[in-house]
Amino acid sequence: MPTPSLPPAPRATILPAATTTRTAERSWAYLSRVAEGPCWALHELISLVGPIDAARALRAGKLPAALDKPTRARRDTDTSGADLEALASHGGTLLTPDSPRWPAWHTLQMQNEPAQRDGGAAPPIALWIRGQDDLDTLLGRGIAIIGTRAPTAYGEHCTRDIAHELAAHGATIVSGAAYGIDGCAHRAALAAHQPTIAVLACGIDQHYPAGHARLLHDIARHGAIVSEYPPGTRPARFRFLARNRLIAAFAEHVIITEAGARSGARNTARWARLYNTPVHAMPGPVSSAASVGCHEMIRNGEATLLTRASDITGTPMLPVNAGSSSRAPEVVRQTDHLTPEQLRVFDVLPLRGRAGAARVGIDAGLDPRSTRAALAVLEMHGHARCLDGEWQRASPRSATRSTAQ
Amino acid sequence: MPTPSLPPAPRATILPAATTTRTAERSWAYLSRVAEGPCWALHELISLVGPIDAARALRAGKLPAALDKPTRARRDTDTSGADLEALASHGGTLLTPDSPRWPAWHTLQMQNEPAQRDGGAAPPIALWIRGQDDLDTLLGRGIAIIGTRAPTAYGEHCTRDIAHELAAHGATIVSGAAYGIDGCAHRAALAAHQPTIAVLACGIDQHYPAGHARLLHDIARHGAIVSEYPPGTRPARFRFLARNRLIAAFAEHVIITEAGARSGARNTARWARLYNTPVHAMPGPVSSAASVGCHEMIRNGEATLLTRASDITGTPMLPVNAGSSSRAPEVVRQTDHLTPEQLRVFDVLPLRGRAGAARVGIDAGLDPRSTRAALAVLEMHGHARCLDGEWQRASPRSATRSTAQ
Repeated sequence: MPTPSLPPAPRATILPAATTTRTAERSWAYLSRVAEGPCWALHELISLVGPIDAARALRAGKLPAALDKPTRARRDTDTSGADLEALASHGGTLLTPDSPRWPAWHTLQMQNEPAQRDGGAAPPIALWIRGQDDLDTLLGRGIAIIGTRAPTAYGEHCTRDIAHELAAHGATIVSGAAYGIDGCAHRAALAAHQPTIAVLACGIDQHYPAGHARLLHDIARHGAIVSEYPPGTRPARFRFLARNRLIAAFAEHVIITEAGARSGARNTARWARLYNTPVHAMPGPVSSAASVGCHEMIRNGEATLLTRASDITGTPMLPVNAGSSSRAPEVVRQTDHLTPEQLRVFDVLPLRGRAGAARVGIDAGLDPRSTRAALAVLEMHGHARCLDGEWQRASPRSATRSTAQ
Repeated sequence: MPTPSLPPAPRATILPAATTTRTAERSWAYLSRVAEGPCWALHELISLVGPIDAARALRAGKLPAALDKPTRARRDTDTSGADLEALASHGGTLLTPDSPRWPAWHTLQMQNEPAQRDGGAAPPIALWIRGQDDLDTLLGRGIAIIGTRAPTAYGEHCTRDIAHELAAHGATIVSGAAYGIDGCAHRAALAAHQPTIAVLACGIDQHYPAGHARLLHDIARHGAIVSEYPPGTRPARFRFLARNRLIAAFAEHVIITEAGARSGARNTARWARLYNTPVHAMPGPVSSAASVGCHEMIRNGEATLLTRASDITGTPMLPVNAGSSSRAPEVVRQTDHLTPEQLRVFDVLPLRGRAGAARVGIDAGLDPRSTRAALAVLEMHGHARCLDGEWQRASPRSATRSTAQ
């Protein structure tokens, strides 16, 4: 047993586990605010030396030249403690790339895209989350539904239908919590008692948009609110564009149900194409300005045309309500089984009055033997009737009736 | 001077021109009825020996084996005299391949398609016409507009709009005179005071469909009614399918404005693809059964999505009425000319209250020098206002107003 009075053994470089975790978390929180939005240089520094040393280097001003300008405004201001407290006060989680719950596959595709390394759309440093934090599982069946903030009644109806149907069949609906299509999609998923994920362009503590405060609360309770921005960050246009890349990366499919000519949804679609995520757009009336974006995307090959949930799932789903099944059942005609020659004879048979076999043959342009053969088959199936050596058309039902009489 | 009593010189094989023409016409008329619908063997025989000898061979029963069955029902019945009389009584023309008015280019593409030689869809033998018979000129700007016989109000509206707009800009609208979309397209062309062509699956003397007797009369008066079937031929399903190939071959573009899952319009579209004629389909509400065919064609790459006339003409057309312009004018924002950094600063500027340049820089994640430069440009353009050393957002209009005050 060691003597109690002995000083503790020096362990300058070995922190206890709890301290390491706390230090790492503070480092991640600091790094997640130090540059504005996606930043390849920061991403690479962290990959190289880990979050703790990366944060230490930035705080000390000992940093690669590429990081000087992007971090100059904020690197001397460390609000990580307050940010984590704000997160805790909302019962949230800071999800970081070293967690098994990190959506590794989805961020990996951002990382592997060489075009993106130059374009600046690096993976997120960390994700601030209110609600369920197992993004890796939830996003494995993620389907993004997005669109205009000013939808028509038609767009709202279609969005609710398809979001509800996909959610009811296990999809996690991902959207941006905006007014209009986004809100419709989240609400339909909640109505199907399925988790839904809102990816925000502001801190997870912001009530934005204000009218969706209650909806955001419900999403956090039954799904998750996710942001790469620390608490307190206010929404701004450039953050929406950066946020859109996350929606695109987080989804297995992106669906745009209604979008005008100049819609943020098209920005998300561009990201999706970069990540090889299939993009689908719903058509609408050609006279609707709210569908112009969808139509242009379909026309230009930027999106495939989608009319119902099973276009994505590949298998017909049971419609969750009658109105959601847009495709008419296949029509089967009673004459579908006839050969072209039999059909030709059937088509020239008089509906009223009668005609001899010779006349029928001339009208159909068929030789006598073929005509007689066709008439025999038609009679057998109840499509033709012979009275006093002359022929007329019949329908199988009326033929049956006449037999019964 | 020859003696009048001398007998005329023998010219057994040289008929006078008028007689030749009359004989040729009778031959064409006979050949146009002798087989039912398109017939490669007959087409080839005529190409080889000319119409007069071809008709003579068939009448005499001295014919290639391939023609025996197709002509057996009718070759002994020559109604060509009566058919031409019926045509004359309607003031019509029999247009034949030896006429300069024959739409040679359009039938040539049918001929050149190897797949078609086996498929049996030979070019027409001759065309029976009521109305303008210069098909070669009219079809040089032919655009087919076709679709369901049971359109929605939406489908009718869109058809009228695009048909009227295309006709008003010189297109000859080609369609099938059926109820629904066909009728809408013809009527819109007539309303634009442009010739329109109805291609029928029956004789040009038939009032089919009955409710379109008046419309057919108007089309014949201001455009043309065309059929490959002699007068008296009644419509039949197999004739509609053969007729569809003519609509496809006669058009520079085929537009399907509304079509259900199982529509004859899709048959026409298949022919058009075989002839490399561009096929366009108009989308509609996803919940509309009347648009299912259009959506499937767009989705499967069988047709391109079309929303307005200029999608085809390539140049924006002046809308013929206000309702026909479906695409919203490009929205231009006052901040569109700003650089990404200026936009970032603009976006974080407070709308109410004010902020110092340092705060603005931190919020935007920009270093002080870039922040100051952006603020200066924003102020210059009226997007930012500085009061007592602090900044707030402004809109150019209010800036102008404040300058004026």
